[in-house]
Amino acid sequence: MTVSPFDHPLLSALLGDEEASRHFSVEAEIEAALAFECALAEAEAENGIIARDAAAAIVTALASFRPDTALLRAGVAKDGVMVPELVRQIRAAVGEPHGDKVHFGATSQDVIDTSLMLRLKAIVEHIGLLLTETVLRLTSLEERFGGRALTGMTRMQPAIPIQVTDRITAWRGPLQRHQERLSDQARRLLVVQFGGAAGTLERLGDKGPPVRAALAAKLGLADAPQWQSQRDTLADFAGWLSLLTGSLGKFGQDIALMAQGGTDIALSGGGSSSAMPHKQNPVKAEALVALARFNATQLSGMHQALVHEQERSGAAWTLEWLLLPQMVVATAASLRLAAELAGQIESLGH
Amino acid sequence: MTVSPFDHPLLSALLGDEEASRHFSVEAEIEAALAFECALAEAEAENGIIARDAAAAIVTALASFRPDTALLRAGVAKDGVMVPELVRQIRAAVGEPHGDKVHFGATSQDVIDTSLMLRLKAIVEHIGLLLTETVLRLTSLEERFGGRALTGMTRMQPAIPIQVTDRITAWRGPLQRHQERLSDQARRLLVVQFGGAAGTLERLGDKGPPVRAALAAKLGLADAPQWQSQRDTLADFAGWLSLLTGSLGKFGQDIALMAQGGTDIALSGGGSSSAMPHKQNPVKAEALVALARFNATQLSGMHQALVHEQERSGAAWTLEWLLLPQMVVATAASLRLAAELAGQIESLGH
Amino acid sequence: MTVSPFDHPLLSALLGDEEASRHFSVEAEIEAALAFECALAEAEAENGIIARDAAAAIVTALASFRPDTALLRAGVAKDGVMVPELVRQIRAAVGEPHGDKVHFGATSQDVIDTSLMLRLKAIVEHIGLLLTETVLRLTSLEERFGGRALTGMTRMQPAIPIQVTDRITAWRGPLQRHQERLSDQARRLLVVQFGGAAGTLERLGDKGPPVRAALAAKLGLADAPQWQSQRDTLADFAGWLSLLTGSLGKFGQDIALMAQGGTDIALSGGGSSSAMPHKQNPVKAEALVALARFNATQLSGMHQALVHEQERSGAAWTLEWLLLPQMVVATAASLRLAAELAGQIESLGH
Amino acid sequence: MTVSPFDHPLLSALLGDEEASRHFSVEAEIEAALAFECALAEAEAENGIIARDAAAAIVTALASFRPDTALLRAGVAKDGVMVPELVRQIRAAVGEPHGDKVHFGATSQDVIDTSLMLRLKAIVEHIGLLLTETVLRLTSLEERFGGRALTGMTRMQPAIPIQVTDRITAWRGPLQRHQERLSDQARRLLVVQFGGAAGTLERLGDKGPPVRAALAAKLGLADAPQWQSQRDTLADFAGWLSLLTGSLGKFGQDIALMAQGGTDIALSGGGSSSAMPHKQNPVKAEALVALARFNATQLSGMHQALVHEQERSGAAWTLEWLLLPQMVVATAASLRLAAELAGQIESLGH
Repeated sequence: MTVSPFDHPLLSALLGDEEASRHFSVEAEIEAALAFECALAEAEAENGIIARDAAAAIVTALASFRPDTALLRAGVAKDGVMVPELVRQIRAAVGEPHGDKVHFGATSQDVIDTSLMLRLKAIVEHIGLLLTETVLRLTSLEERFGGRALTGMTRMQPAIPIQVTDRITAWRGPLQRHQERLSDQARRLLVVQFGGAAGTLERLGDKGPPVRAALAAKLGLADAPQWQSQRDTLADFAGWLSLLTGSLGKFGQDIALMAQGGTDIALSGGGSSSAMPHKQNPVKAEALVALARFNATQLSGMHQALVHEQERSGAAWTLEWLLLPQMVVATAASLRLAAELAGQIESLGH
Repeated sequence: MTVSPFDHPLLSALLGDEEASRHFSVEAEIEAALAFECALAEAEAENGIIARDAAAAIVTALASFRPDTALLRAGVAKDGVMVPELVRQIRAAVGEPHGDKVHFGATSQDVIDTSLMLRLKAIVEHIGLLLTETVLRLTSLEERFGGRALTGMTRMQPAIPIQVTDRITAWRGPLQRHQERLSDQARRLLVVQFGGAAGTLERLGDKGPPVRAALAAKLGLADAPQWQSQRDTLADFAGWLSLLTGSLGKFGQDIALMAQGGTDIALSGGGSSSAMPHKQNPVKAEALVALARFNATQLSGMHQALVHEQERSGAAWTLEWLLLPQMVVATAASLRLAAELAGQIESLGH
Repeated sequence: MTVSPFDHPLLSALLGDEEASRHFSVEAEIEAALAFECALAEAEAENGIIARDAAAAIVTALASFRPDTALLRAGVAKDGVMVPELVRQIRAAVGEPHGDKVHFGATSQDVIDTSLMLRLKAIVEHIGLLLTETVLRLTSLEERFGGRALTGMTRMQPAIPIQVTDRITAWRGPLQRHQERLSDQARRLLVVQFGGAAGTLERLGDKGPPVRAALAAKLGLADAPQWQSQRDTLADFAGWLSLLTGSLGKFGQDIALMAQGGTDIALSGGGSSSAMPHKQNPVKAEALVALARFNATQLSGMHQALVHEQERSGAAWTLEWLLLPQMVVATAASLRLAAELAGQIESLGH
Repeated sequence: MTVSPFDHPLLSALLGDEEASRHFSVEAEIEAALAFECALAEAEAENGIIARDAAAAIVTALASFRPDTALLRAGVAKDGVMVPELVRQIRAAVGEPHGDKVHFGATSQDVIDTSLMLRLKAIVEHIGLLLTETVLRLTSLEERFGGRALTGMTRMQPAIPIQVTDRITAWRGPLQRHQERLSDQARRLLVVQFGGAAGTLERLGDKGPPVRAALAAKLGLADAPQWQSQRDTLADFAGWLSLLTGSLGKFGQDIALMAQGGTDIALSGGGSSSAMPHKQNPVKAEALVALARFNATQLSGMHQALVHEQERSGAAWTLEWLLLPQMVVATAASLRLAAELAGQIESLGH
């Protein structure tokens, strides 16, 4: 069953992105959660929190562990997160005498948030590549058509003659600033989350910081103090996603407006109509506008979730889950569509 | 792959609703589209637009028609809607000499929007029942605990003594008004969409209105002039959904606040924690708040989609697809959770 | 100082509406608050809650009462509402022995919410008239140009020929449904708010309901149980405002698109440019789009405010104040602009 | 007349900020616009675009120029911006033979956007100082109460004991990251806008870039290519404002929750109630939550405005005017309130 177009067997062909979606599959989520528990056991053994034997038993058990997803589903319905039930199953798999050392000193949020970061790391790389590709496609358009003439349009009215390069620059400039912004914010974003029951790692004594650093290193994330109730890096990343789709929405809107009259642009591969076979609908351009307005809508909710009460808010945290994955996929899809649309432009200007 | 929690194999146990989701599956969508094409052929034959033989051939072919979904997917990627490819497949299944009478005079939007209405009709009934159930559960709470004392809380501070019935009334009153609102708006909402290429049913001559009326009657929808670029009934329905989840969010927030101290309320079945097995987290109450804020977020986009340019906007229309199904499922889930949460209340007040 | 364009000495000429704004001036707010206190004293005297002498003294004092606004401002900074300080000043003006009968049994929210309703009543009438006017203007356009030809545009591409009347119908149809919707919801909206400290009118004994009914009647509002933490009628009204501006935004967008090429429409009175004196910018059409997107944005916050905790939420209530008045003025301005824009259309179609 | 609480004579005492508002007064706007025209004349004279005599005449005339604001208001109603009428008045003031050299090669958007940047520069400094002050207040709280005990609260339930310092760190950490973010983005934000009719500075020949650089230098802004249809820096700044208010909203929410029971915190100066004089309402804490949700709401519209069509969109640009100034003032007010609230904390923890 598919409620979201991003998950829809048909609509995802237009509006989705397989590679980005893959990171939000339940398989990817569980894999990242198990990687967390494995790295945690090792980091704790290295710092003398649990015995080396215990860590070895955990690592071994996890290598072949397959969760019972029906029970995980029941666990989510009751606990609001899959982690308590997942940990119970892993502990059973590890068995006596080391089972109780699984997830030692950690809490559900450590698993879920760090697992998200592991996947965002891959996603940031994927989106970064797509962004580079889109910038290149625009540059290539500029090389081909930049010197041609276009009527500058201001306030929806013909203004004065400009060149195609002027309009392409307005499409590409923001994308290049988004590349800068991503490198500004990625270092704050892609960090481990490890705080224990209420953020204080109280069960690790003075070994909290070294265990966390080791855990981060094993997982390929940067180390940082727990941020369980500090959601600014996620909201900031959501803002970046929406800046990106907004800029691509402007590109899409401009293309759709140019395609109206039919002389400023020649597009191949437009969509056909069930009533009018002659039409060449600028489907990808329209989808860029829709995805831009979608992300602009979602962003508001990600900022509402900043009001994250006390040491952990179930409500604000759950709200993020409802919003962020879709924003990520919308962004990857937008970049894919923009690159494809740029590739469909056979002529620009006069 | 699952990007949205409503589609997620685990998270949908908390945040989803199977019955509501079912209506947004691709199977349900195709079934409704085929029902449209079938009813259209019959309505057109009855009005002399196509031959009775043609209609019979179409009805027969549709009875056993199974679309090639891989081709539908490719069609969506190119055309932005599945309809052109679906119609092509149905025409091939009907074959000569009647194939070209399939979808006669109709356009993609007629299929998609009417198909949505068919499913919203079932959904409105489902949500209406859930709403009645929730109202009953609150009334039952009132019967059991209404006369007990509670400290009225204003601006997050103890104010004066009130009764439990006072607070329950504030939870139930809006729900009862939502019942009224639904009956006000359902008659405007659940109508057929049939306009042809640009809304004028130009291929039906003076038979447009009777064909449309017959089509509506066969599908169990009310008849109305085409509304393809007039999206107010959908935005209004989205507003109703968000009013409902907002009211349930207040209920959830109040329960979570009462559960903090632990003396105003006794709840069974709270969620457990992976770090603190003693906890009874008010997971369903928190989910109600999250879903309320989710729908309040989405609603903004549904209203942005009112700026639906000219005779059909691909961008504004696609934006609705990204928002409305999730709002529906969020609402059904909220009602289910609210009824369950009310059932978990073992004691209220003093 | 003016932060909002609706209050701005220059921008309000385009984006504001004087009549709607007038109802949100501090003078109008204080006048309505004093009307509340006056009617309350009379209603309480009629029901034997306070002495007739006390009511007479209050009515007399209020007739010439002028608040010290500097102290009211200081009161708002401290108390979050002007009412505690306003009541203190009125009590001082009434003096001994009746001063303490001012505001008897009431609370700040009773004054603020009822005062809002008094002003919304006038506003609903004003907006209703503007809406009627806009519908008439569109009908007049239809009479003049309805039979002319236009190229139907779907997905931003030329589709098939339609008539001007087809497009005008798509502009007017939603407005007519909004008229219906307003009469559906106005009876739920325009009601008195009177609940006392925590909604129970505890100081009025069994005279709560009759006092409230008398208060409502004196103020020209409908009677209803207190709704201090039930904000659905306000959120619903906000939705109506945004439906209306959204429909007008579609009208504006269509006009701006038609004005691009210059042959589908002839507009008089377009805006000039500081760089290109020859231009005729469709300024009012663009403003309609901006106001539609503005209200669609604000609406989300009004629905967030439905999560109104316990018997009174300072946070959710204050959020409404930041949003609703501007939505009202944006709507009135939109209607004014739409009527003016319709009046500037000198020719439509071919 | 005052529609927005930020402009309201009473409510601005709680929700506004005088210093931030001052920069959005019409006086400040006109002053900045005149500074633009003055600097432009000088920069153009230095680069041989206009005669030195012309520049001198313009500078002299501007020194004593006072616009007719009634005519400016009428200009806005017609043109959508005040600039065409303002330029007409300045040209008249300069008189023959140099009047036509006023605003040479510039367009309305150059004036409005550069004028905004001049004021945002002062605002960024003001908000930066307020932010530093708030961080210091939190550090001072930590010094006084950091070592005391508190019950960590997760998912609205008591979890385990933590220290006051743990919670203060969660309030302050995001603020410190916002300081970093501001310095990351300020260099992209505070730049001149100068593009002429359609962004190409076509009337300046090859002197466009040096004139723009000189103009920027005279105004104390950084130089950058025109960005008239590239609104990412403004949307990004809006995101920063909302990140900041979101973080302060969490602080406010936590304080209000702590103040409920009354033992975790002692607050002085709470708001009083018109019904219950004994209450100490956490008014400033609630206002922080309201302002956070307000900015989270507005942010969505700023991102919708990224879909800025062609060389200049009247609709998208106007939408920014309706949103950004209020977001700025909401942020300054939040910071002021947070610092005041921190100052009202007389005791934290046990």
